[in-house]
Amino acid sequence: MRNDRPRNNRPRFGSGRPDRASFQRPRASDGAAILYGWHTVKAALENPERRIRRLLATENAARRLGDEGTRLPIQPQLVRPDAIAALAGREAVHNGLYAEADPLPPLEIEDIGPTGIVLVFDQITDPHNVGAILRTAAGFAVAAVVTTARHSPEATGVLAKSASGALEYLPIVTVQNLARALSDLKERHYLILGLDSTGDTDLGDVPIRAPLALVLGAEGKGLRQLTRATCDQVARLDLPGKIKSLNVSNAAALSLYVVSRRLAAAPD
Amino acid sequence: MRNDRPRNNRPRFGSGRPDRASFQRPRASDGAAILYGWHTVKAALENPERRIRRLLATENAARRLGDEGTRLPIQPQLVRPDAIAALAGREAVHNGLYAEADPLPPLEIEDIGPTGIVLVFDQITDPHNVGAILRTAAGFAVAAVVTTARHSPEATGVLAKSASGALEYLPIVTVQNLARALSDLKERHYLILGLDSTGDTDLGDVPIRAPLALVLGAEGKGLRQLTRATCDQVARLDLPGKIKSLNVSNAAALSLYVVSRRLAAAPD
Repeated sequence: MRNDRPRNNRPRFGSGRPDRASFQRPRASDGAAILYGWHTVKAALENPERRIRRLLATENAARRLGDEGTRLPIQPQLVRPDAIAALAGREAVHNGLYAEADPLPPLEIEDIGPTGIVLVFDQITDPHNVGAILRTAAGFAVAAVVTTARHSPEATGVLAKSASGALEYLPIVTVQNLARALSDLKERHYLILGLDSTGDTDLGDVPIRAPLALVLGAEGKGLRQLTRATCDQVARLDLPGKIKSLNVSNAAALSLYVVSRRLAAAPD
Repeated sequence: MRNDRPRNNRPRFGSGRPDRASFQRPRASDGAAILYGWHTVKAALENPERRIRRLLATENAARRLGDEGTRLPIQPQLVRPDAIAALAGREAVHNGLYAEADPLPPLEIEDIGPTGIVLVFDQITDPHNVGAILRTAAGFAVAAVVTTARHSPEATGVLAKSASGALEYLPIVTVQNLARALSDLKERHYLILGLDSTGDTDLGDVPIRAPLALVLGAEGKGLRQLTRATCDQVARLDLPGKIKSLNVSNAAALSLYVVSRRLAAAPD
């Protein structure tokens, strides 16, 4: 069951290799993924690949899960909101749901199918930004996300919450060496398109085709030199206003929209 | 000089009314706007409307300002990065620059010109999201932002940093009553277009024209009932993937892109 994603219509993933600490797998000190918030926990409960170790719910949240027909893989521990805030953090908007779960099975570049759009993060680290981008990537049905980033347990809870369930839907590949991962994608016939304010051509005009790997650099720094050199093309996102550089998650959303539309409009 | 925005090519703003606490004017306990981060402080230093009360800079940041030819309205106090972190917060990415400034002159609905796109916030409060949206709004050269939100002094520093200078470029109108503000915009011939996941029509297909007020609801809640009832149309943003609802700043970015392109393509 763990290698099967029946609700996604995606290729089968999972390599059978032992788990390791990585981006997709927010871990507490005991190796658990920390998940809180309505959409985040509900999506995890509904993901047959996700083994839930522990589930805390307020009475209201438990009732609402029942009303929506969510099948619970384990019995929830009914608690007051304060008990969840003590675990998730005082600032966390937990909506009465908190879970600790096994990490999802790790994925490799070879697990990525030969079609569609892959989003690649070159050292994007802010967990709010990463979570928002994953959420949008799942909205645009990207084939996979490739990243080098690893996060602290606290950050992974924030990331999972910002991703609003996207961790359950989106194949995420964590790599040690991004340039090698891009070369591997090239061998798999991906066009490697970097996005950077210093790019030669506007994203609306650069020649593109599927399968496409869209590479985003870290906020403030852009693409690293080696990443840039590995790209087939580097494009910029032209804006009419006084501000020329956007928050990285907003830039990611616009870029995904532009390339998705262009690929959908292109003849096969 | 304070009512003149020569670098913006925008209509003149500013009403001469006394300042009051509002969204555009992040305030410390003594009423100052708190500004930190390279783009945020540099844009404020270059804004002739912004009176800087106090400027702290590291030696590196002061040298870089000099290298870029930024004229300093007051002498910076040269400090170590720790001194700025003590004021801006340990988590803040301040880039060696911190300023306290007078709030900008308050604006009213009547100050908004009769053309282009106005972005309206219906109780969007998260300062990271608000800042990111303001940055993107300045990227798309929107005519103004209308909001009801007020922020704590700590939040306004985060907001200004996330806005990355957009507070200096973007006319922001803070109102008490959003429905009345929308009615005022209608009288000024604005088409009022709400964005909500329950909208009748996709944003790409709904009839639009300039001047256009695009109304965004709070994350998780969407548009309030009265706001919705005041809109001429309510549209949704269709997405192909499993996730149907985006982070509000990402949804704002996509919506601005879609309506900007459609208005640019429309015959006059």
